[in-house]
Amino acid sequence: VTGATQEVRYLLVGVGNVGRRFLELTVLKAETLRRLGLVLVPVGVADSSGIALSSEGLDPRRIVALKAAGQGVADYPGWGQRGVGPLQMVRSSVTPLPAGAPTGAGPGLLIDASPANMVDGQPGLGCIEAALQAGLHVVTANKAPLVLAFPRLQALARERGVRLGFDATVAGGLPAVNLGQRDLAAAGITRLEGVLNLTTNYILTRMADDGLTYDQALAEAQAAGHAETDPRLDVEGWDAANKLVILAHSVLGQPATLADVEVEGILGVTPEMLRQAAAQDRRIKLLAVAEQRSSGWHLSVAPLALDAGHPLAGLGGKQMGIVYHTDINGALSATIVEDTPLPTAAAVLRDVVDILGG
Amino acid sequence: VTGATQEVRYLLVGVGNVGRRFLELTVLKAETLRRLGLVLVPVGVADSSGIALSSEGLDPRRIVALKAAGQGVADYPGWGQRGVGPLQMVRSSVTPLPAGAPTGAGPGLLIDASPANMVDGQPGLGCIEAALQAGLHVVTANKAPLVLAFPRLQALARERGVRLGFDATVAGGLPAVNLGQRDLAAAGITRLEGVLNLTTNYILTRMADDGLTYDQALAEAQAAGHAETDPRLDVEGWDAANKLVILAHSVLGQPATLADVEVEGILGVTPEMLRQAAAQDRRIKLLAVAEQRSSGWHLSVAPLALDAGHPLAGLGGKQMGIVYHTDINGALSATIVEDTPLPTAAAVLRDVVDILGG
Repeated sequence: VTGATQEVRYLLVGVGNVGRRFLELTVLKAETLRRLGLVLVPVGVADSSGIALSSEGLDPRRIVALKAAGQGVADYPGWGQRGVGPLQMVRSSVTPLPAGAPTGAGPGLLIDASPANMVDGQPGLGCIEAALQAGLHVVTANKAPLVLAFPRLQALARERGVRLGFDATVAGGLPAVNLGQRDLAAAGITRLEGVLNLTTNYILTRMADDGLTYDQALAEAQAAGHAETDPRLDVEGWDAANKLVILAHSVLGQPATLADVEVEGILGVTPEMLRQAAAQDRRIKLLAVAEQRSSGWHLSVAPLALDAGHPLAGLGGKQMGIVYHTDINGALSATIVEDTPLPTAAAVLRDVVDILGG
Repeated sequence: VTGATQEVRYLLVGVGNVGRRFLELTVLKAETLRRLGLVLVPVGVADSSGIALSSEGLDPRRIVALKAAGQGVADYPGWGQRGVGPLQMVRSSVTPLPAGAPTGAGPGLLIDASPANMVDGQPGLGCIEAALQAGLHVVTANKAPLVLAFPRLQALARERGVRLGFDATVAGGLPAVNLGQRDLAAAGITRLEGVLNLTTNYILTRMADDGLTYDQALAEAQAAGHAETDPRLDVEGWDAANKLVILAHSVLGQPATLADVEVEGILGVTPEMLRQAAAQDRRIKLLAVAEQRSSGWHLSVAPLALDAGHPLAGLGGKQMGIVYHTDINGALSATIVEDTPLPTAAAVLRDVVDILGG
């Protein structure tokens, strides 16, 4: 830490649960960030209402206040624009500056906190590509572009000499990618296991511990904001599978698509099965597993009964976790308790600090 | 990864459990290290027999073979020297080169894997100071110099523009320091809890799970190599306290000495207490705790009965773990299973890669 601070001008796509909390964190943690060498200034923010764009910098508090009032960034006084999409915002922001313009005036970072669109990854994918192409670092909390185009995005980042941070996509605030990529850089990973989906873990835990039916547990999860109105992505196992695909690419060095993952959700788990498991001192968890077979990595997501001694067996309803079995580093486990999307926003901030901090 | 590799010439002090395994790892992982941009070449190695020193580079396999045969590095053909201590080795290695010598011929890294001498930190402390002073990076698995002189060593490293890596000192292969310093850089840590000593956790677990007496469990731990012949440092809680002091300095930003830690070992834990705890579904662990009080951080090590849901309650006899309670990142826990000192040696290698890797 040299005491020098760097002003980082950034674009933000998506001001939902994570994006909004990220903006709040930049205000709450302004002093800490300054100590870490960073002053973060949003210069373009997009949500479903449109965009707010100003090379003078936007006020994150103002944006949070607009969202709290049920408005959108298009309502931002002076700088709001309706009918403009995020990709247009990114493209216009990274347009080459006119000769003689002060250097460093353009944004240096794109944050993608837009909803995961598993069909074509848009608008996140297009925004990330445009940003990397223009030499911006990218930090994303959006799984879809990675699941659909990880190798292309990684190659593009490398080619442009910028970084793509995505630890927030895998298990909220848990540094699952960091642990695998960085702490185990010299180790050989022999097996990976993860409880990567909060909704299903919440449902299974409430069913097992409190005798709720699936419908009751789901309704409760939805009421508490732990489950989407359409829970299929979660309960059918696809969200966990998406995360496993990202880990396969980034940590295991195994190109993979969703089609490579054997997926079974929790809909077949009955109260009776949970009772039987408990009677044997076991706990059923929706486990994402990567295991090395002679044919290569085998990827699966399925409900499994874990022995009580398994490091993920004791996870409560608001926890996620991961276990890396390694050749030289023992078996390394990490778990996190998350009550809100705040740790996911904190993981975005962590990636920003990691990439740009002093 | 650019494909360029850097030859890193290093000095190693101590060829016991950790130092020897580190040498083995550099051979086993040579290909991985090359991919990470590193070729590690020992140019000076010290143990209790003396030193082996050669600017042409020593063969790590040869040193491992000497140790396996009950010999020491002083027996290294051609380059072994008896009656020379590690500090003398470091000093002579970092002597300014004669004019016209090829640049880069001196070592760039010191690894301290010497035994922890809690009285005055020697010889590790002197070697680390001499190395930092001469502009070498330092990676240490030796707690003593840090416990006795953390602020001085950290200031020296900063002043010389080099890095001091020490994650191997806290909980073997667990990246406890990395998680706290790096993954939680922007978070505020509100409380830290750790099971940081393997010996006491092994003893307590065997007593609780298998009904052994303290003496039986200790004898077994010693036979299995999990406890020293003189177990006082472990069972009286001082080893855990040392680790807590290092975490206080490095992660909590709290200068601390052993005298600041309230320490109680496991000698007062009776089989009856373990039975009573088990009857209440609780587990007694030797817990290192840092908690914020109005007067600042309060540091303690003591046997505590943890509820079954506590992330460290389920630790088996060969596990250690840490929990960081934070303001914005939820509660982050990490645990590791370690059967041998290999993960500690792997943690040394991790620090080397982190500091010098491409």
